[in-house]
Amino acid sequence: MPTGNLTILGLGAMGSAIAARLRDTGYTTTVWNRTAARTLPHTAAGSRAAATVPDAADAGDIVITVLLDHASVREHLEPAAPHLRGKVVVNLTTTTPGEARDTAAWAAAHGIAYLDGAIMAVPSMIGTPEARLLYSGDENAYAIAEPALAVLGAAEFTGTDAGVASLKDMALLAAMDLMLLGQLQAVAMMRTVGVPAADTAGEVEAWLTAMLPHGKAVAAIVDGGAYDTGGQSVDFDRRGLASIITASREQGVSAALLEPHERLLAELSAAGHGGDDWPRIIDRLTIPR
Amino acid sequence: MPTGNLTILGLGAMGSAIAARLRDTGYTTTVWNRTAARTLPHTAAGSRAAATVPDAADAGDIVITVLLDHASVREHLEPAAPHLRGKVVVNLTTTTPGEARDTAAWAAAHGIAYLDGAIMAVPSMIGTPEARLLYSGDENAYAIAEPALAVLGAAEFTGTDAGVASLKDMALLAAMDLMLLGQLQAVAMMRTVGVPAADTAGEVEAWLTAMLPHGKAVAAIVDGGAYDTGGQSVDFDRRGLASIITASREQGVSAALLEPHERLLAELSAAGHGGDDWPRIIDRLTIPR
Ligand SMILES: NC(=O)c1ccc[n+]([C@@H]2O[C@H](COP(=O)([O-])OP(=O)(O)OC[C@H]3O[C@@H](n4cnc5c(N)ncnc54)[C@H](OP(=O)(O)O)[C@@H]3O)[C@@H](O)[C@H]2O)c1
Ligand SMILES: NC(=O)c1ccc[n+]([C@@H]2O[C@H](COP(=O)([O-])OP(=O)(O)OC[C@H]3O[C@@H](n4cnc5c(N)ncnc54)[C@H](OP(=O)(O)O)[C@@H]3O)[C@@H](O)[C@H]2O)c1
Repeated sequence: MPTGNLTILGLGAMGSAIAARLRDTGYTTTVWNRTAARTLPHTAAGSRAAATVPDAADAGDIVITVLLDHASVREHLEPAAPHLRGKVVVNLTTTTPGEARDTAAWAAAHGIAYLDGAIMAVPSMIGTPEARLLYSGDENAYAIAEPALAVLGAAEFTGTDAGVASLKDMALLAAMDLMLLGQLQAVAMMRTVGVPAADTAGEVEAWLTAMLPHGKAVAAIVDGGAYDTGGQSVDFDRRGLASIITASREQGVSAALLEPHERLLAELSAAGHGGDDWPRIIDRLTIPR
Repeated sequence: MPTGNLTILGLGAMGSAIAARLRDTGYTTTVWNRTAARTLPHTAAGSRAAATVPDAADAGDIVITVLLDHASVREHLEPAAPHLRGKVVVNLTTTTPGEARDTAAWAAAHGIAYLDGAIMAVPSMIGTPEARLLYSGDENAYAIAEPALAVLGAAEFTGTDAGVASLKDMALLAAMDLMLLGQLQAVAMMRTVGVPAADTAGEVEAWLTAMLPHGKAVAAIVDGGAYDTGGQSVDFDRRGLASIITASREQGVSAALLEPHERLLAELSAAGHGGDDWPRIIDRLTIPR
């Protein structure tokens, strides 16, 4: 039987799933929501409802926030700071790395042990190993909260920089975003000759499954940092990309999604890097500071 | 023992691998290359060398071209048209769909059975099932050439429109291109907090492997054509993408690769499609004609 009093602030789709899972696992749960009516199914199922955020904070050793965004988190946590002192706050609201660091600094200034989380799951996955949750920030806070967090899904501590959990979330989402757009580009091209999207999606899935491991070779070139392995060069990649773009446009499909790649390669070539390994384009993505 | 006289025009890296594989399988092979010296290892291994393209064409029932590009193919095939009449020409040179159709029309006008091919492999893969070769164009030509083509790798006839093999090649390469760029974007973001590219590549590979099947759901929405399933909307996608872009820029990483997606979504939203399923952006990729 798990021990500990948990407070959940925010009972939207995600907050409700989290509160329910913690309650079902045996934790004592106190819930608060801006619109009080949303607490009713939770009190009926055994949670306690708090009328205010300070009351909710007083009731829990660990306070989990699942609000809309950074602004709503700060709006409600700041006035409750004296009630949060000495407690663990786990913020599962989606924020940017900068916002996470900002809240971590605010928490440190108020004696609050702060953990920033990123949820890589939809509410229905909460409580299954398919739900992946990333955490970063205060290591002690993680040690204290870990047993409770582990019941929500696969938990991973990504580092003491509070921004890293959300950065990693965003980095993986960026990779997925471009992969899905690549699928859509292929679908758009093949539709011009009457191939249904479902057929192209199946082909793309099989092809990318075979090609995914190639990312490790690209990474080795980036980590090496010399870009002189003699593999596919910037200029080789440019010619290949030009064919893809021409093929697309010949079929009446925009190549807009591919144009930034074309531009980055052209810039590298103009700067005398045409013979370098193509992953050199990562230099153009990283703004020196 | 396979029977048939095969001619291979072009002995670069790919043409050499193809000639060697066909010869090793037992075919009678005649080779031609612009720079004649490159025929020597092939004659030493049992091929016959032809001094001119017409001579080479006369020697083969099936003529396989593996030259640099469309221009080099037309430069050498056109003067040899009388020698190619009644034969099967399989053009494995990389071309665009439009170029393939153009050569198919030229071949038809000269009584040549034309097959356009696309090689999804590097030379070292030729002769293994990992090598995938797509063909489109004359169905009879494919029936005749199929036994020989099957020894080069997994052969697939994609349709009688000669442009389709190269279109499918380019569509799959477009999907791979954006997937690899997505990996690089994630690597660039995580490098800013000291995570080696190899670690991020491993994470991205696992994550995308789990997310790839999601493409089928996207395809079903596109094939449905109504964009009203109530799943993730254009405006929902916009907010998510805005977080990814902000996270990237906060870390000093350019979001250039993601900007076309942002632009397409903003256009859709401005056109009143903010509530539609996000795959509606395929409409913006397809230029009406
Ligand atoms: N749903 C998912 O699949 C998913 C996945 C990963 C991460 N997340 C993240 O989880 C968080 C919550 O998402 P959700 O799906 O639960 O959203 P939701 O269903 O829209 O619920 C939003 C919650 O935030 C509250 N809220 C909004 N503005 C507020 C304010 N100014 N002050 C106080 N409370 C406010 C709402 O309270 P009211 O009831 O009073 O409106 C409600 O409890 C978001 O940051 C989201 O990005 C969600
Ligand atoms: N290598 C691969 O991984 C790969 C993969 C898929 C598809 N392909 C395609 O296969 C084709 C050949 O590629 P490759 O790798 O073999 O290239 P390569 O090693 O650079 O060889 C090019 C070949 O084209 C010939 N050539 C170039 N310009 C010519 C001209 N104007 N007239 C006559 N011959 C000319 C060269 O003859 P000389 O010896 O006289 O220069 C040589 O035989 C290309 O279309 C390529 O896109 C290659």
